Amino acid sequence: MSAAGKVYLVGAGPGDPGLLTLKGKECLEASDVVVYDALVDKRLLDYARPGATLVYAGKREGYHSRPQEEINALLIGYAREGLTVTRLKGGDPFVFGRGGEEALALAGAGISFEVVPGVSAGVAVPAYAGIPVTHRNVAAAVTFVTGHERTGRDVSQLQWEALARSGATLVFFMGLRNLPEIARTLIEKGRAAGTPAAVIQDGTSEYQVTVTGTLADIAERARAARLEPPALVVVGEVAALRERLQWFPEPWAAVTGLSPHAGRRGGTARAIDREK
Amino acid sequence: MSAAGKVYLVGAGPGDPGLLTLKGKECLEASDVVVYDALVDKRLLDYARPGATLVYAGKREGYHSRPQEEINALLIGYAREGLTVTRLKGGDPFVFGRGGEEALALAGAGISFEVVPGVSAGVAVPAYAGIPVTHRNVAAAVTFVTGHERTGRDVSQLQWEALARSGATLVFFMGLRNLPEIARTLIEKGRAAGTPAAVIQDGTSEYQVTVTGTLADIAERARAARLEPPALVVVGEVAALRERLQWFPEPWAAVTGLSPHAGRRGGTARAIDREK
Repeated sequence: MSAAGKVYLVGAGPGDPGLLTLKGKECLEASDVVVYDALVDKRLLDYARPGATLVYAGKREGYHSRPQEEINALLIGYAREGLTVTRLKGGDPFVFGRGGEEALALAGAGISFEVVPGVSAGVAVPAYAGIPVTHRNVAAAVTFVTGHERTGRDVSQLQWEALARSGATLVFFMGLRNLPEIARTLIEKGRAAGTPAAVIQDGTSEYQVTVTGTLADIAERARAARLEPPALVVVGEVAALRERLQWFPEPWAAVTGLSPHAGRRGGTARAIDREK
Repeated sequence: MSAAGKVYLVGAGPGDPGLLTLKGKECLEASDVVVYDALVDKRLLDYARPGATLVYAGKREGYHSRPQEEINALLIGYAREGLTVTRLKGGDPFVFGRGGEEALALAGAGISFEVVPGVSAGVAVPAYAGIPVTHRNVAAAVTFVTGHERTGRDVSQLQWEALARSGATLVFFMGLRNLPEIARTLIEKGRAAGTPAAVIQDGTSEYQVTVTGTLADIAERARAARLEPPALVVVGEVAALRERLQWFPEPWAAVTGLSPHAGRRGGTARAIDREK
């Protein structure tokens, strides 16, 4: 009989490998198995000990490589073999990461687990674009919303009118595909059309590209710049602070007339890696 | 003439020193000066290089040791001496940390700066209490609110009605002092009185204590347990998941009939440290 294993639900942070936590790194170093997502920077896997089993369990928008139930079963299976497992998830495990479901599955199976929170993309990606999500006398609240929710489809949960009128900074995860609908709905429900907005693609990475505008034109501007997921949408007066606070270089944005993704696909190993 | 210095606005994370980022640690190691807040775990200062100048710039609820303008001037002054400065702030610098103000001051003075986001208490403290702030089919949004805002005083910013009706998980930073008013207002504005809620004191530290209840009784329960700041308030259906997901031990909570703070004051070095 093998001793019971343990699962660490670890947030990898938003992209920049330097934003992994010390504890997250320790988990990677100590684990027999690392089960990682698509949005995780592959350089983090170098922290895994030689001989560790690396399992890709990635999901991308509109593309599910493994059903959640299968991932849960995988984690439980490894732990029952007595192994130490790191479940490495982009950003933070409990911010739209389905970490809650994995934790419930582990708890239900009697598997010991710990949560190692990560730097959430919802705060860090705007920060790398020069946008503080809260700011004294400008935004006393910030709301993270999953952009996968379609307007009107799940009103009872998202309550678009409340979102539009809350005055909070709104951060939409994976909001690019629904951006025209998101922007139109927020305006219809009472948010000023002139509210500053930004879309940040590949935030905190060397491929970061930011497009700014207002609720009225941000969808068209993002389309014109040919932005593609993964991207984060920020809506609120704080988005205008980027003009004074931009500090992180965006070389891809300087390549005029070229979609950053087009460039990446053509020329970088990372682009190919991320298409898998 | 000395070369221009640089300021790193670094998030220290929510308390557990293991939740500092790799990049944050590098900044501490490389800096000539570290300007740190009260809520920062003092063990993190051990990463500073020998001979580095450590400056306490802490602020606690209701107790301002240095005005913000003075801190801004301090950072600018050190950078103008050509020094590398780490401004170490609890949680994330841009989540109610006034990091935006510091960044604006630096930008205005022509000082080079970088932001190193941290793990936000808004996500990590609930996670250590076994509460995922978002959860599929339960909470598709989460809002961070500063509990310093008094209900009714600044309605245009906080828009309590929108908060109450958004369906989002609500996380109040420093919300303990205003908890009776916060809970009453949310119920008045339409949030169900039976909505699960939790108050987490000293989250992610060895002194963590969590009290759970509903919007109707959470304020009274927190009072009865003699909770004190720093504390985070979570309101939403996800708070009920703690029952199944609690994983982080809370030995202080087991000391029946004793306020955790009373115990700390009597017996621990850290308690004394934090009273300064």
